[in-house]
Amino acid sequence: MNESALRQLLAAVAEGQSTVDDAVAALKTLPYESLPDVTIDHHRALRCDFPEVIYAEGKTVDQVVNIFTRLTENHDRVLATRVNEAQAVAVAKSIPNAEHHVVGRCISWRRSPSKPPEREPTICAICAGTTDLPVLEEARITAELIDQGVQTIVDVGVAGLHRLLGRLEEIQRAKVVIVAAGMDGALPSVVGGLVSAPVIAVPTSVGYGASFNGIAPLLTMLNACAPGVSVVNIDNGFAAGYLAGMIARMAKEK
Amino acid sequence: MNESALRQLLAAVAEGQSTVDDAVAALKTLPYESLPDVTIDHHRALRCDFPEVIYAEGKTVDQVVNIFTRLTENHDRVLATRVNEAQAVAVAKSIPNAEHHVVGRCISWRRSPSKPPEREPTICAICAGTTDLPVLEEARITAELIDQGVQTIVDVGVAGLHRLLGRLEEIQRAKVVIVAAGMDGALPSVVGGLVSAPVIAVPTSVGYGASFNGIAPLLTMLNACAPGVSVVNIDNGFAAGYLAGMIARMAKEK
Amino acid sequence: MNESALRQLLAAVAEGQSTVDDAVAALKTLPYESLPDVTIDHHRALRCDFPEVIYAEGKTVDQVVNIFTRLTENHDRVLATRVNEAQAVAVAKSIPNAEHHVVGRCISWRRSPSKPPEREPTICAICAGTTDLPVLEEARITAELIDQGVQTIVDVGVAGLHRLLGRLEEIQRAKVVIVAAGMDGALPSVVGGLVSAPVIAVPTSVGYGASFNGIAPLLTMLNACAPGVSVVNIDNGFAAGYLAGMIARMAKEK
Amino acid sequence: MNESALRQLLAAVAEGQSTVDDAVAALKTLPYESLPDVTIDHHRALRCDFPEVIYAEGKTVDQVVNIFTRLTENHDRVLATRVNEAQAVAVAKSIPNAEHHVVGRCISWRRSPSKPPEREPTICAICAGTTDLPVLEEARITAELIDQGVQTIVDVGVAGLHRLLGRLEEIQRAKVVIVAAGMDGALPSVVGGLVSAPVIAVPTSVGYGASFNGIAPLLTMLNACAPGVSVVNIDNGFAAGYLAGMIARMAKEK
Amino acid sequence: MNESALRQLLAAVAEGQSTVDDAVAALKTLPYESLPDVTIDHHRALRCDFPEVIYAEGKTVDQVVNIFTRLTENHDRVLATRVNEAQAVAVAKSIPNAEHHVVGRCISWRRSPSKPPEREPTICAICAGTTDLPVLEEARITAELIDQGVQTIVDVGVAGLHRLLGRLEEIQRAKVVIVAAGMDGALPSVVGGLVSAPVIAVPTSVGYGASFNGIAPLLTMLNACAPGVSVVNIDNGFAAGYLAGMIARMAKEK
Amino acid sequence: MNESALRQLLAAVAEGQSTVDDAVAALKTLPYESLPDVTIDHHRALRCDFPEVIYAEGKTVDQVVNIFTRLTENHDRVLATRVNEAQAVAVAKSIPNAEHHVVGRCISWRRSPSKPPEREPTICAICAGTTDLPVLEEARITAELIDQGVQTIVDVGVAGLHRLLGRLEEIQRAKVVIVAAGMDGALPSVVGGLVSAPVIAVPTSVGYGASFNGIAPLLTMLNACAPGVSVVNIDNGFAAGYLAGMIARMAKEK
Amino acid sequence: MNESALRQLLAAVAEGQSTVDDAVAALKTLPYESLPDVTIDHHRALRCDFPEVIYAEGKTVDQVVNIFTRLTENHDRVLATRVNEAQAVAVAKSIPNAEHHVVGRCISWRRSPSKPPEREPTICAICAGTTDLPVLEEARITAELIDQGVQTIVDVGVAGLHRLLGRLEEIQRAKVVIVAAGMDGALPSVVGGLVSAPVIAVPTSVGYGASFNGIAPLLTMLNACAPGVSVVNIDNGFAAGYLAGMIARMAKEK
Amino acid sequence: MNESALRQLLAAVAEGQSTVDDAVAALKTLPYESLPDVTIDHHRALRCDFPEVIYAEGKTVDQVVNIFTRLTENHDRVLATRVNEAQAVAVAKSIPNAEHHVVGRCISWRRSPSKPPEREPTICAICAGTTDLPVLEEARITAELIDQGVQTIVDVGVAGLHRLLGRLEEIQRAKVVIVAAGMDGALPSVVGGLVSAPVIAVPTSVGYGASFNGIAPLLTMLNACAPGVSVVNIDNGFAAGYLAGMIARMAKEK
Repeated sequence: MNESALRQLLAAVAEGQSTVDDAVAALKTLPYESLPDVTIDHHRALRCDFPEVIYAEGKTVDQVVNIFTRLTENHDRVLATRVNEAQAVAVAKSIPNAEHHVVGRCISWRRSPSKPPEREPTICAICAGTTDLPVLEEARITAELIDQGVQTIVDVGVAGLHRLLGRLEEIQRAKVVIVAAGMDGALPSVVGGLVSAPVIAVPTSVGYGASFNGIAPLLTMLNACAPGVSVVNIDNGFAAGYLAGMIARMAKEK
Repeated sequence: MNESALRQLLAAVAEGQSTVDDAVAALKTLPYESLPDVTIDHHRALRCDFPEVIYAEGKTVDQVVNIFTRLTENHDRVLATRVNEAQAVAVAKSIPNAEHHVVGRCISWRRSPSKPPEREPTICAICAGTTDLPVLEEARITAELIDQGVQTIVDVGVAGLHRLLGRLEEIQRAKVVIVAAGMDGALPSVVGGLVSAPVIAVPTSVGYGASFNGIAPLLTMLNACAPGVSVVNIDNGFAAGYLAGMIARMAKEK
Repeated sequence: MNESALRQLLAAVAEGQSTVDDAVAALKTLPYESLPDVTIDHHRALRCDFPEVIYAEGKTVDQVVNIFTRLTENHDRVLATRVNEAQAVAVAKSIPNAEHHVVGRCISWRRSPSKPPEREPTICAICAGTTDLPVLEEARITAELIDQGVQTIVDVGVAGLHRLLGRLEEIQRAKVVIVAAGMDGALPSVVGGLVSAPVIAVPTSVGYGASFNGIAPLLTMLNACAPGVSVVNIDNGFAAGYLAGMIARMAKEK
Repeated sequence: MNESALRQLLAAVAEGQSTVDDAVAALKTLPYESLPDVTIDHHRALRCDFPEVIYAEGKTVDQVVNIFTRLTENHDRVLATRVNEAQAVAVAKSIPNAEHHVVGRCISWRRSPSKPPEREPTICAICAGTTDLPVLEEARITAELIDQGVQTIVDVGVAGLHRLLGRLEEIQRAKVVIVAAGMDGALPSVVGGLVSAPVIAVPTSVGYGASFNGIAPLLTMLNACAPGVSVVNIDNGFAAGYLAGMIARMAKEK
Repeated sequence: MNESALRQLLAAVAEGQSTVDDAVAALKTLPYESLPDVTIDHHRALRCDFPEVIYAEGKTVDQVVNIFTRLTENHDRVLATRVNEAQAVAVAKSIPNAEHHVVGRCISWRRSPSKPPEREPTICAICAGTTDLPVLEEARITAELIDQGVQTIVDVGVAGLHRLLGRLEEIQRAKVVIVAAGMDGALPSVVGGLVSAPVIAVPTSVGYGASFNGIAPLLTMLNACAPGVSVVNIDNGFAAGYLAGMIARMAKEK
Repeated sequence: MNESALRQLLAAVAEGQSTVDDAVAALKTLPYESLPDVTIDHHRALRCDFPEVIYAEGKTVDQVVNIFTRLTENHDRVLATRVNEAQAVAVAKSIPNAEHHVVGRCISWRRSPSKPPEREPTICAICAGTTDLPVLEEARITAELIDQGVQTIVDVGVAGLHRLLGRLEEIQRAKVVIVAAGMDGALPSVVGGLVSAPVIAVPTSVGYGASFNGIAPLLTMLNACAPGVSVVNIDNGFAAGYLAGMIARMAKEK
Repeated sequence: MNESALRQLLAAVAEGQSTVDDAVAALKTLPYESLPDVTIDHHRALRCDFPEVIYAEGKTVDQVVNIFTRLTENHDRVLATRVNEAQAVAVAKSIPNAEHHVVGRCISWRRSPSKPPEREPTICAICAGTTDLPVLEEARITAELIDQGVQTIVDVGVAGLHRLLGRLEEIQRAKVVIVAAGMDGALPSVVGGLVSAPVIAVPTSVGYGASFNGIAPLLTMLNACAPGVSVVNIDNGFAAGYLAGMIARMAKEK
Repeated sequence: MNESALRQLLAAVAEGQSTVDDAVAALKTLPYESLPDVTIDHHRALRCDFPEVIYAEGKTVDQVVNIFTRLTENHDRVLATRVNEAQAVAVAKSIPNAEHHVVGRCISWRRSPSKPPEREPTICAICAGTTDLPVLEEARITAELIDQGVQTIVDVGVAGLHRLLGRLEEIQRAKVVIVAAGMDGALPSVVGGLVSAPVIAVPTSVGYGASFNGIAPLLTMLNACAPGVSVVNIDNGFAAGYLAGMIARMAKEK
């Protein structure tokens, strides 16, 4: 509720068009909804331009289905991440046109199922190795649900630099670049030095012993010498895709 | 054995009402009991106002049943935490009116099964996400066994601040507030700045990669800027519930 | 601003006693004050029953003096912690009756300088070694500024258990117990098993190599087997004293 | 060198307008310059839209002066960060109109010293406490050198939430938000839930023991539940300012 | 081969009683034996007074059986630790009088199966909780195989101090004390202050979240304030039992 | 493409023997190949003298089979490491003469299946315990695929020093020494002081609690006092074998 | 107070030779002494056979002098460790025959200054490098104050194994071996495999980067494969010397 | 002493040309020398082809001078690393032709001061930033003392990739490549993919907060995806230079 709405409400009270009780109610009510064990934040779509996302890991099948169903009733697109097999099956049964992305472990849903044809992609999503693919997919699905086109480039780690350089022109056309990497996590440092777009780095938990489930690439990326690089949580493709979508949308509005 | 008891015992010796051998025995005997592999501390009920609690994880089914049974013989309430399915079934068979709390993974027992009607809750137990619920439940069950009323508020993380603010008045009525959170663990910092009651923060092991099974929220909570916040172990709902119960009982005695 | 205040304000608007503009201002104004580089939260005294505390470390001498001065103008007691020599001298010059506590590295100030005579202390503050004293002092000064009496017991670490046991009766009389310890940090575990009051554990950065500046006692305390123990940040005597004061005040109100 | 430039060069060779030797040279030459112990990357201004920045820490006074001087000869703006007193004095002597920012520990230089009047700021830079100010300043100076207006809001940590909420409208107007915080690092989580702009979180090394020189807020920020948050290195105001500038410039071009 | 043996050998060469080739062989031969994938150190029994012990974890069933069999051929007692079910069954089939200790996960074997009657135990082995029992057992079995009597005291953690104090006299009679504890690991600190015998502390991986699989008690024990305490690896009951046996044997020889 | 090739190409353009379009193509084409989800780097065999190696962990069976098949078409030897049972079976079905090494978890393939008879081994690969064998095997298989002979010595840890000293002469004959060890990781320090060849140390994740899955031996090896020791990742036998092969080949070329 | 003393006291009460008040006092009084800020544990000499040791680090000069003085009044030997220059000078002024050990940073005092001539040393104290000497000295001084002879062997790290082997016979004669080492910390593993005496390992904070102030050798020593090795805190020469003295005294009593 | 020497010695004994006493002495004597507090390992020059190197950090000025002097008497080249100003001055006074390298913090000495003219360098030593120079210098000085030519390339970090690529041909000519880098430590990963020579990676302690004094680049390098990379300790230029020298010498002997 911003100031002008507040002024309107108060004017209505002053003019007797609204009772004190109604005004108290209006000033106290906030658009969330309490299910058992869950408090759904319908307001977020207004505040942050995207409905609340369901982080399915650790939730029961029933919880996931209930939240997903409620969100479909109030919003025109819904996303659940880290979905396991049982959750996916149950959601599919309840919400027929929900789409299950196996590699990216997500379920997405749009009220109007036909996605508009994309113009040139605004986001380039790169990963260092084939094993980073699930994280990259989670990022892609998220960004596409914000209506951004995403081009993915897979398996172009720095140990074979020419693979990366061979795709450089495509990468340089993007408004935002997502780079996912495990092991040494060196790819964002290199990409960051080659582009003038923001680079969102996603460490993945892929690697031998001393990668420590993603700590090694996380530290590498936080210490990237190239400017323009920022970092999200280990394996958090959703965060990268969401942020990339936000930035790309701002940039597209020219 | 406090000083007055000691004086009584010594006076009995001086007056010949007690032999030296008996006094030696009395001074040496302490109210614990040795089962095979277990030393039960019956004295704790006197010393700390609550019988010893059974931490079931890593104990055999037989050990849990034996200890639980013995404690029911000497005390009027018993609690076992971190109970697995097999342990729960076995205890239920031996002790008919034991109550198994599935979400909170506890078994509680009271000699007089009817719980007295609660007045207004003294404790408010809040968690940031649905996935923190098992930890919150362990806290609630523990505090209720100390006869404190607990109001739980679920899924009000700081990313949707208005959900929290919408429940603020209820939270502010509590004598003690328990706040469980995983991921960024930021909820206790915010709650601590909004209430004048002590806040007991419980980090949970819920989260993406760099939450490191609860280290991230643990550190956040230890560094909470708001005064009045203290922290218990990761996922240790029991510790939070017990401490909250202690404080609430002190406060209620006005 | 709670609901009844809100109702009053709205009623005044409805009755024409308050203009819309005034109501907007009242609903928007919050009792903080912006100095250059600082936002003073005068509201905290209302919300949390204690004025904002100045954490002096890393602030310039001028910043400390300015904030301290402003707080004395709006509140009846002020506390600054982690004060260095230069800051202490400058505050003393500006605010004559401010009290500098050298060992505890604090400055405290009360409008009415005469502290009321204390009845029996409500808080017992214990430390394991002489070197933990500065942290214990910070806790004591804080709690006394909330008008709680504090009894301190110094140098009773678990390696000489009888020293602790010899003071046990005094400790058991307290409503709240603060325990500061470095090195092995084992004292709160032992004290927690001997009292029925809440124990607030403060790890200190005192110790040989593998205490790692307080990590070792921090972990010990988080893992304390005795129930009723919670933990604050390393060397954070203020947090312990503040929380102890909150709890003791609740308990005293019988 | 992109494809069209390559085609031109090869055409020139084919037409005899360029010798093979010249073409080899052109294909091999890259716009960097070797000083003793330093390889200056003049090319970065073309590639990344900003000249190389001098990280002064650990460099000798002479190295800083030399690199700074060379960069002023080839570029229209230069920035040095983490500058100590001796380095600042020496640069000031060599480059008269270089500007030394004491709090932010930077030196900036522009060929045309008069900064154009800024329209409404595009970036909002917030910090949780007064002690975070040097990091915030480094971010502000960097972003302003990319011609972005920056509004700073200081000392609005989550422990006094109303201070933050009181400035919310200003924050929500920004295209990008920078949030610096030490201790619990909870501010970006809260801000991220309140705005629809990207949030760049900067952990600072401010805090008591268990903040571990910035590890605690770093982990908090990586685990921020609010979407749209990404993280840069501890105390790295430059990285935040640079990235914010990149994004704001993209957004402004509407 | 010590100096006197060397002198004898050389004297034999000088006197022609030994050929150069034989002496070379004697000087080069060392009492180890190469099986495929294993090099058995038969010499250790001479050098360290105990045959090499088989650490079964990570070895195949065949490897364990082969090594165990070979050791029984050259020594009068053999020990395997960390034995899983399959390994235990296979060894039992090959070596009839091998003894499988289920709780302690060991197999022991003696050529002369009848253990001599023990005089008063020389070692007291204590653990803080029932869950530490497997580690304590591993220690006991090891020490008994060196012919030392071991008295075990289970479940006497510091949270119920009187349980420990009630057994103090028994503990004080021991020549060496082994103390195993998980969680806060505080027991060795307390025991070390109450006895004049060496205390060997064994951290166990038992505990809630922030015990970090034994890191918390390990650090506690390394920082034990009581003198006379040393530490072995997490869960390494064998190391504690072996060392205790060495010391007790030295002490018994009065 | 080195300078002379570049000169040739440009000369061809200058002389009209090559069109501009062909030259653009040649200058842009790089020898990699894009399969779905994989970018195969055929160029690596030229650049680094060894085809790209397939790190099978985390790849699907299909991905492993596809990449392996393509590599066999372009190279005369192929290696896959960290192969699980299902992957091994599938590769065996597709590529008949692929060799599956069970202990070392690798699949190797050579176009000309008959390996040339080896002269004296150039590499000595040692491990401290039997449980380190899989890592040692991975190293051996890798080095032999580069046509280097490898002598392995198993189970010669420093606790039985004479076992090592008994093999010293063999070790000292090698051009390069690989040393794998878990637990204390002390073996490379000792070996490094006894040989004049480079020592490649491989920490393994074998050990009791405080070896922390290889961190302990990793740190030991990084701190090895003996000069000539360098370290590869935990359990990374491939890295050790590959590096040893590179060095041995250089040394053999005398 | 053991059982027989207790019986005597109670008998005196029964026979009227002792009043109840006296008995209460006797049962409650424990031999400690409260100075301001310090609680001296005079009882420890009885309980642990050695007076309390002063850990001087972090204590004021006055505190050190006062405690030292009091201890000299009640005991026949006193030790202060981690003494700085100012503390040493002040103690020397107050207690003339106190001995300051510069390298070992200790002050020791004996009532009867003439030390009895030592027979053959019972303890062998070894260090890996010259830089470990202060820690070794602290161990030696401590053990000699318990009347044990100590032979020190300096700079025999495993990188030059023959230096160690050349001294092996001397080492093998000791009843207890202390081994101090920084960097890789490998020396105790090797020594432990060569002797049949207990080995007390002391990690030191000496070393390059990744020794992390002693963490690397600490972990190495905890993971030592050789049996009979236990570990004390980083740089804690006192703990090693004290424990070695305890064990050696037991062994000497044959 | 190898087998043939042993045979000769024993033959001499057999033939009466050598007495038993002499043989004992010969078999026991090893070429080390005991100074007070130091055991010099003269044998290392034979065993490892390079005299023992003096690690000056933590040694007294006298110790450094004494050891350096003794080594000059027995060897033709000597190296001391991590030398501080006072040590350097004192060595210069005692040993006139010792060479002090200020940036690399080393002192080197050769009996025959004229270094032979170098052919083409065999080692290429690269660092990512100017601040890494001291570590690179330590490596260069060490390798040159083993008579290897070293070409250094400074400030070619991956954020400006073309700086590296512009020097690629020089780098590819080397037999061994040393790569030092702090911050993200990504340079060895990139270089390793571009050369066929072994790459020795040296993490440096240069960087912002989350580089954690070299942990970040250390982990990056251990996880380098490019094969042929191994790692030495943080800031350990000596280790890199020594190892590179060993390998280069082997390779040069063609």
